[in-house]
Amino acid sequence: MSNVIPKPLADLIEDLRQLPGVGPRTAERYAHSILKNDEELARALSTSLGQLHGKIEYCPVTFALIEAGQKLSPLYTDPRRDKKLVAVVAETFDIVALEKTGGFDGTYHVLGGLLSPIDGVGPEQLKIPELLKRLGKDRVTEVILATNASVEGESTALLVTQAIGSRKVKVTRLARGLPVGIDLEYADQITLARALEGRQAV
Amino acid sequence: MSNVIPKPLADLIEDLRQLPGVGPRTAERYAHSILKNDEELARALSTSLGQLHGKIEYCPVTFALIEAGQKLSPLYTDPRRDKKLVAVVAETFDIVALEKTGGFDGTYHVLGGLLSPIDGVGPEQLKIPELLKRLGKDRVTEVILATNASVEGESTALLVTQAIGSRKVKVTRLARGLPVGIDLEYADQITLARALEGRQAV
Repeated sequence: MSNVIPKPLADLIEDLRQLPGVGPRTAERYAHSILKNDEELARALSTSLGQLHGKIEYCPVTFALIEAGQKLSPLYTDPRRDKKLVAVVAETFDIVALEKTGGFDGTYHVLGGLLSPIDGVGPEQLKIPELLKRLGKDRVTEVILATNASVEGESTALLVTQAIGSRKVKVTRLARGLPVGIDLEYADQITLARALEGRQAV
Repeated sequence: MSNVIPKPLADLIEDLRQLPGVGPRTAERYAHSILKNDEELARALSTSLGQLHGKIEYCPVTFALIEAGQKLSPLYTDPRRDKKLVAVVAETFDIVALEKTGGFDGTYHVLGGLLSPIDGVGPEQLKIPELLKRLGKDRVTEVILATNASVEGESTALLVTQAIGSRKVKVTRLARGLPVGIDLEYADQITLARALEGRQAV
């Protein structure tokens, strides 16, 4: 097809296909749209992509994303946030989801993944020693395990619980149960079983 | 959310949202994936986007995409292609679809859109005068109207037919009918009506 799609465009399509869930048709559609748009979008994307890795770093305490030049995550240094309360999440983007609730004023700790032997992620890849260090230093009173309700999420939560061991810290996890707005009849068995187990007095 | 997502990343997410059909969640997912990947993907994308508009031009005869520096589209200059047979398409990417069939050895003419008063596309935006010029110059014997089976596609085909008028050129259009592999019961009424109208002797 080298006659049909000029090389600079074919290169872009090839690169766009590296994005998650983007097949050849979607990549073509994106490339076509970028080409039809005025040059500004292409330039803006080119610039923000070129600078990305140089301008983003990880907070050395929480492992949240920070801008290069910031020493610590503002989610950690903000005096309105309670350092004694730490939500443990798998990935940096999980913080975004929790922050959107507007209902959490503690701090975060990003593990950098979930235990997954198939993907070659073992305990040594996760930032658990760094979490244990924070427990003493920040006098943490509660660790909230905010991992997914998947097998990997559950086994990672177990691993963190075992690592905390007999330290004097309350360990909690996100409630499992019926998602808001979902009918009983559409809930899967496991979710429903969890909702029963975790039933609360009215 | 400026505390949560560092600005360079937020900028990238904002830019990615300009792509067709990309909402905030998808843009976040792309950005996250680009950030987690090694820097190479970000650099490759940045480079191909930065060069794109400078390296792509339009063929002045067929209005297909060409690499900067090429004078004419290889789809036009290739001596194996029959210049007397011209497929008229709306967009440059329609050429890709037709070339994939491997069943067309004529040349193309890209109109640059379809008639669409709502989107402000009138007859004067389409490359119809340029098509008429080719009819004489290349001694065209057949024009195949290869536009969509939509209202815009049909009215554009009609417009081109009227513009060609009484010139001595055979004007044909792509057959309408049942798509291969589709059951009768799932075909829509209009397609089925067209398939009936266009029925062929066995």
